[in-house]
Amino acid sequence: MSKKENKDILKSEITELKGKLLALQQPLRAAKLPVIVLVEGWASAGKGSLIRELISDIDPRFFNVVSPKIEPEESRRYPALYPYALSIPENGQIIFYDSGWMEEAVRKYIHRDITKDEYKARIRTVNEFERQLRDGGYILVKLFLDIDRDEQARRMNALRDNYETEWRVTNEDMWQCKEYKLFRETYTEFMDKTDGAAKWHVLDGGDRRTAIRDAFKIIVSSIEEAIENGKYVGKPFEEDFPLKEMPLLKDVDLSPTIDDEEYKKELKKLQEKLKVLHNVVYRKRIPVVICYEGWDAAGKGGNIRRITKSLDPRGYDVKPIASPEPHELNRQYLWRFWNRLPRSGHIAIFDRTWYGRVMVERLEGFCSELDWKRAYNEINEFERQLTDWGAVVIKFWIHIDQDTQLARFTDRQNTPEKQWKLTDEDWRNREKWPQYEIAVNDMLQKTSTKNAPWHIIESNDKKYARIKTLKIVVDALEKACKNKKL
Amino acid sequence: MSKKENKDILKSEITELKGKLLALQQPLRAAKLPVIVLVEGWASAGKGSLIRELISDIDPRFFNVVSPKIEPEESRRYPALYPYALSIPENGQIIFYDSGWMEEAVRKYIHRDITKDEYKARIRTVNEFERQLRDGGYILVKLFLDIDRDEQARRMNALRDNYETEWRVTNEDMWQCKEYKLFRETYTEFMDKTDGAAKWHVLDGGDRRTAIRDAFKIIVSSIEEAIENGKYVGKPFEEDFPLKEMPLLKDVDLSPTIDDEEYKKELKKLQEKLKVLHNVVYRKRIPVVICYEGWDAAGKGGNIRRITKSLDPRGYDVKPIASPEPHELNRQYLWRFWNRLPRSGHIAIFDRTWYGRVMVERLEGFCSELDWKRAYNEINEFERQLTDWGAVVIKFWIHIDQDTQLARFTDRQNTPEKQWKLTDEDWRNREKWPQYEIAVNDMLQKTSTKNAPWHIIESNDKKYARIKTLKIVVDALEKACKNKKL
Repeated sequence: MSKKENKDILKSEITELKGKLLALQQPLRAAKLPVIVLVEGWASAGKGSLIRELISDIDPRFFNVVSPKIEPEESRRYPALYPYALSIPENGQIIFYDSGWMEEAVRKYIHRDITKDEYKARIRTVNEFERQLRDGGYILVKLFLDIDRDEQARRMNALRDNYETEWRVTNEDMWQCKEYKLFRETYTEFMDKTDGAAKWHVLDGGDRRTAIRDAFKIIVSSIEEAIENGKYVGKPFEEDFPLKEMPLLKDVDLSPTIDDEEYKKELKKLQEKLKVLHNVVYRKRIPVVICYEGWDAAGKGGNIRRITKSLDPRGYDVKPIASPEPHELNRQYLWRFWNRLPRSGHIAIFDRTWYGRVMVERLEGFCSELDWKRAYNEINEFERQLTDWGAVVIKFWIHIDQDTQLARFTDRQNTPEKQWKLTDEDWRNREKWPQYEIAVNDMLQKTSTKNAPWHIIESNDKKYARIKTLKIVVDALEKACKNKKL
Repeated sequence: MSKKENKDILKSEITELKGKLLALQQPLRAAKLPVIVLVEGWASAGKGSLIRELISDIDPRFFNVVSPKIEPEESRRYPALYPYALSIPENGQIIFYDSGWMEEAVRKYIHRDITKDEYKARIRTVNEFERQLRDGGYILVKLFLDIDRDEQARRMNALRDNYETEWRVTNEDMWQCKEYKLFRETYTEFMDKTDGAAKWHVLDGGDRRTAIRDAFKIIVSSIEEAIENGKYVGKPFEEDFPLKEMPLLKDVDLSPTIDDEEYKKELKKLQEKLKVLHNVVYRKRIPVVICYEGWDAAGKGGNIRRITKSLDPRGYDVKPIASPEPHELNRQYLWRFWNRLPRSGHIAIFDRTWYGRVMVERLEGFCSELDWKRAYNEINEFERQLTDWGAVVIKFWIHIDQDTQLARFTDRQNTPEKQWKLTDEDWRNREKWPQYEIAVNDMLQKTSTKNAPWHIIESNDKKYARIKTLKIVVDALEKACKNKKL
């Protein structure tokens, strides 16, 4: 077959595939499927031009092209995958990454911005991220645009020879050209180790039309398959996280109390310690995530206030978690928490958390059984990503018994200034106490990891509870501050 | 009265006021009122400590303390008030700014980071911003914490003498101490010129307790007043913006067409020009905002696609504007557009825009008459803030007649692949054509400012329309690129 014939065949194949992709737009939206196309590859391999072809016929309202910026200094202020986790598409939308988490990790590793261990952790994290996206219903297509050394050198020289284009060739690119062999080894290893939940597709960047045709084919067939098969429903992935042993709720002794004098003394002492520690946390840029879960009327609000009282208001935020809004429901369920993470050096206090997945969402059927069963492991992974980043993660279950709850509900009902605190939903939840108790026990057993353990706070006596949480926070921050240099 | 007595009186006044503020939390949330407390003042005047007192009893779920960072380089990538416009509170929430738009403007001016003219524009913008917030139902309390020169020097020296606190005194602070007189003049002038929709309150920072008591008094009375009086309902503010004369829709000649050959030739030529220009726009960091409004089925989507086809996908975004989500409805109506502004050098294409306020929201009663009547001026101000920042703002009204719309609706109804494009709402809107025509005429007459004029695009012939918009975009970008140096 002549070159001309071949070209004509490719052209007509591409036109046909473009039409198919166009026709898939509506079914994709109807099925509420989000699509991520990760385009990685060599500098000058033609990533931009490939993406331009891929999007040329799609309705511009339904896709976005992103290339999250990698600013070395700023990137350390958040967990490794933060910019990617934030930019995932909504249901029915397509996101094209013009290079992404692979390029960032590989460059940082080759530049020695991260250590070998950090790089290993990064690869593990990428696998977790991609699996969670797949399990969350995302279509993830990973392309690598390959060119050989000579071709890359030729293209870069051509760009540099032209006044209009020379600015496009960065020092980084030149350096990649020089270190081609090292980059090839590293890219190859990275792809080998992340060929899990989503497979890599290597495209021949030296042959533009074939690469375009192949990319279209892969995307179209991935979407067709997903529309036909629906959401991925494989067995939940489970890793053996090292766990702290937790008692069952029924075995927790709720009798501890504290007398008023002791309370005042301790409160003052601990709040002063915390105040000093907050300063160190800020200067050492330690991120802190404090999670509150507990029975209605257990005293979460007052407890949180005793913590915040000693904090510099510029350095913390309380994040009240209500039902998700539509734009939050349209994305993987952890997205809205990624979105609320503190910068390093800051403290985020979550009043209710991602554990809603395995409590209210489980009990009210807001997600499938598979969804909440998978969530234990997903949450353990998420929290490990936080502690890997250097965060102190402290989780409180504020615990009371049913009689105490009833007494507090009744008090709220009878006190005009407190009535707003009590809703019909609180009474409905109370009726489901036994089911909640099962869910909470499951949660405590499965997610009290060594790096982010649960603390059960006996709160029949609210004052006792406040002192206990303050002590735990102070201890954890003291330890973290000691371990981290300025 | 002895000092001791005075101290005791102040203490008890503060306790009483704290209680009042606490008791106002619920009414505030019930009335869905958002509160902004701007705390400005001298370095070392005690802003942080004042804020800490103010929030000490408020439920931490209902307030936030922010101090938007001023990074000189990054701040030029967005309009002047961008960080503040993004951080305004939701209804029922309180935001404390630990210094804000005053401090930023004054410092930049004294540092000569901005010119005298830019500073003047900044003051005008601040007045616009504050008035729009007030008119949008925000309670805005502005405090300035004042101390004299000796007191400031004394406090800074004390901080610097202590190992634990010396890091708190920045070079900037030292410099303010040195240039105290210049700062005092500039602060005073700024307050004089921004004492409009929200009044300044100068507090004596030299007397800590009095300052705290006064701050509480001002905040409590502002909230009480707002709860009692409800939203501000003064006469809409109107400025005489220089306007471009616009025809009435009924006088627009919709007959222009283009033949196929001419269309193809022009399309190719213009798209190539646009491609080159996009590169220059990117390198010269010109922000571009393209707005599409028009009748249903006027051909907006296809028109937008002809623009995006020639753009580098990394450098533009199409922002489809649907009905606002709850978190958007809970803030001033322009917030969701501030939130979607492009970085300088990028192009944002809005598929429907903030003009929804004076069209659908006006006609469907989603806002009050006063709200939409005020919006013309507010939008002119908003767009002037964009063009002041250097943005090219291009606004299209894609125009067709009723017969053409009917023909296109019928075609959509009869073509299976197009049916999703046609909704019941489209038919309902069509019935309101006469009312919409009045609203659109009002909009075109009142908001076609010289800096951000409307273009009516005759789109009975879609191809003619595409060429016309492309030409306008190319011309506008060419002009902007010529006027701006690298």
